[in-house]
Amino acid sequence: MKPLSATEAVARIEAGTLTAEKLVRDCLDRIAEREPVVKAWAFLNPDLAVAQARAADVIRGGILRGVPIGVKDIIDTHDMPTGHNSPIFQGKIPFGDAACVALCRTANAVILGKTVTTEFANRHPGPTTNPHNPGHTPGGSSSGSAAAVADGHVPLAFGTQTGGSVIRPAAYCGVIGYKPTFNDFSRVGIKMQCHSLDTLGLMARTLDDIALFRGAVLKLPPVAIDPGIPRPRIGLCRTPIWNEASADTKKLLEATAGKLADKGAAVIDVAFAPTFNDILDDHGAISGWESARNYADERLRNPDKVSGELMAGLKKGLDVTLERYVAAQRKSVAFKAHVDSLFDKVDVLICPSAPGEAPAGVEFTGDPRFNSIWTLAGTPCVTLPAGTGTNGLPLGIQLVGLRHEDDRLLSTAAWVAAHLN
Amino acid sequence: MKPLSATEAVARIEAGTLTAEKLVRDCLDRIAEREPVVKAWAFLNPDLAVAQARAADVIRGGILRGVPIGVKDIIDTHDMPTGHNSPIFQGKIPFGDAACVALCRTANAVILGKTVTTEFANRHPGPTTNPHNPGHTPGGSSSGSAAAVADGHVPLAFGTQTGGSVIRPAAYCGVIGYKPTFNDFSRVGIKMQCHSLDTLGLMARTLDDIALFRGAVLKLPPVAIDPGIPRPRIGLCRTPIWNEASADTKKLLEATAGKLADKGAAVIDVAFAPTFNDILDDHGAISGWESARNYADERLRNPDKVSGELMAGLKKGLDVTLERYVAAQRKSVAFKAHVDSLFDKVDVLICPSAPGEAPAGVEFTGDPRFNSIWTLAGTPCVTLPAGTGTNGLPLGIQLVGLRHEDDRLLSTAAWVAAHLN
Repeated sequence: MKPLSATEAVARIEAGTLTAEKLVRDCLDRIAEREPVVKAWAFLNPDLAVAQARAADVIRGGILRGVPIGVKDIIDTHDMPTGHNSPIFQGKIPFGDAACVALCRTANAVILGKTVTTEFANRHPGPTTNPHNPGHTPGGSSSGSAAAVADGHVPLAFGTQTGGSVIRPAAYCGVIGYKPTFNDFSRVGIKMQCHSLDTLGLMARTLDDIALFRGAVLKLPPVAIDPGIPRPRIGLCRTPIWNEASADTKKLLEATAGKLADKGAAVIDVAFAPTFNDILDDHGAISGWESARNYADERLRNPDKVSGELMAGLKKGLDVTLERYVAAQRKSVAFKAHVDSLFDKVDVLICPSAPGEAPAGVEFTGDPRFNSIWTLAGTPCVTLPAGTGTNGLPLGIQLVGLRHEDDRLLSTAAWVAAHLN
Repeated sequence: MKPLSATEAVARIEAGTLTAEKLVRDCLDRIAEREPVVKAWAFLNPDLAVAQARAADVIRGGILRGVPIGVKDIIDTHDMPTGHNSPIFQGKIPFGDAACVALCRTANAVILGKTVTTEFANRHPGPTTNPHNPGHTPGGSSSGSAAAVADGHVPLAFGTQTGGSVIRPAAYCGVIGYKPTFNDFSRVGIKMQCHSLDTLGLMARTLDDIALFRGAVLKLPPVAIDPGIPRPRIGLCRTPIWNEASADTKKLLEATAGKLADKGAAVIDVAFAPTFNDILDDHGAISGWESARNYADERLRNPDKVSGELMAGLKKGLDVTLERYVAAQRKSVAFKAHVDSLFDKVDVLICPSAPGEAPAGVEFTGDPRFNSIWTLAGTPCVTLPAGTGTNGLPLGIQLVGLRHEDDRLLSTAAWVAAHLN
């Protein structure tokens, strides 16, 4: 049976044909069945989840009435540990909820549990597998959130992205991922990796659910997606790392552009000005400088509890000079203005969500660079499932909108989704 | 006896004529004498401070060898509570150190204790008094840090600024305050109020100490201040709220500009383009939108433990629409570029550090708006003590540098300080 979307669930609960408790118990049943293989959850207390659901049934109301949500385990919860996939934080319960969690609770959501993250949302992986094939990674760092949504454990989950940690795992798992315009969502209670880049993001199986979830996090009435927008102007943006995309990804993007043109979209090629061809180096300089300092406490007080992988990355970050960091910050300002200017001629850019399908094994969560570009740009991004690759695993296409035009991006994504198949 | 600067203390400790333990005991003695009146400390455990000092004497080395530091009580410490001047957090000890604290510890500093903050670095005051006159506020939100440095309790202290919370209290207390370029300093482990604005800052009694302290926080060898720079080009920037400055502040600024011109500086008047005359409204929209969401957990789970003052501010923040927030974010991008352009003709801007002297009473910590302008601009700022007002309390002048040119600002500040008297 196809799992309910959040939007459907709220409608049924409001109509009295479903209770939050039944919905949550169904999710828990699905998890009990699948978790031994998928391993999406870092913490799950079924009794606490059911108690929240019963409370939601009593309270009634709220735009997320009774909807269970998965919370990436670098995001604080006052009633569950936040472990960051690190022995330093194992079992530690924060003093409060992250703002995004508090805002969902006040929208009457059920915080179902904590989803597996890579260590501190960096590279060292957790145990989660790809629900489409347990021999492959779900991507990262929001590994558990992507897998849990894809596998029907929850309709909604939080991820975070500093490089490619929302869009890439969503694409690998075949769900919708959304990274909002930088700064729109609160980051209180979310472990800070890189203050110039960290972005809270959302995962769901439908765009309507993304819009609903976004409303709760913004503490605003959700802006309904408008699929009746005029035919969009689409820019096919191969990005400076196009050659690192797999053959099936390249083919998918170009075929999608062609298909959307056939459906009436105006499609043009869009490229960065050559001065920005090395913009990923600037992302690297910023993330290196900032993370090396931001993890000072872990690095200095608990070096034996930091993975070798992360410690090596932090040491590399210490090699970035202040001059290099400043140059990268200055370039990122220019890059943001340049990216803004690309939207003079298009409503949306399309580009790969990842180089290709999810890699084999769970040790390597995949290459984030097709996403890091846009994390640096601060643009809103959506990945839509758009078929499968040569291994039968999901491929996504990434839609990039103009900064601060998230509503327009989501409606354009709905137009694209409607015309993809 | 004039208290030692950090730079002097490190030199004496390195020369073997002083120990960290003696230095810390001297500070504790001074605090014991003055704290009943000044009330600068939210947490202080003399035994823990002395133990750290003894360890520093054993470890030796480190650019802050043995130097005691005051830490604003919204900044995490793994061995002391972080109370945020809120009953919600009273007595709660964080899991780790803020990155800035960890970086100072690795520079062999002594974390002496936690300094009084207003509630969550917002407006609701703590008990701290102005060391120059206990009938007056020390300013806020970094009240205890400014008072402790001014009164010789510690040579160095951390503050944070979202509006005017470093520069203003430093000016009211007659010490040097420094707010770096936005994003240069890590914010990990510092309670987030407004992610677009929050800036960690430093307080000290000498510019050399600011440079030393900054080196530790950046984890870089300190860049020595160069007082031998060429005569600077100075822009007298009255700002759009000049009329809200007191008569003695206006007189001080204009007299200072005249005096520096006499000493060889090239002084011109600099004004914002008229479109930015209302830029403080944009600061208000950004801080209102962000803080209303960022304190969601406190507001929703512990409304009875939030001051009426803060709760009213948060509710007002909820009235800011997303459209208004986005407009303010867009305007702040344009404002940053405009402020950058002002530096085509000058090396530094001078403007008031506050409307005037510290107000009477401790209930109102003063008007932050002469600082909020530059917090939004993301520029580095320094306040220098520059005389007294009609009540005999300190007045400061604020020097504003080009973003990312903090070294140049500090050296220019040294030139100005040398020529002020």
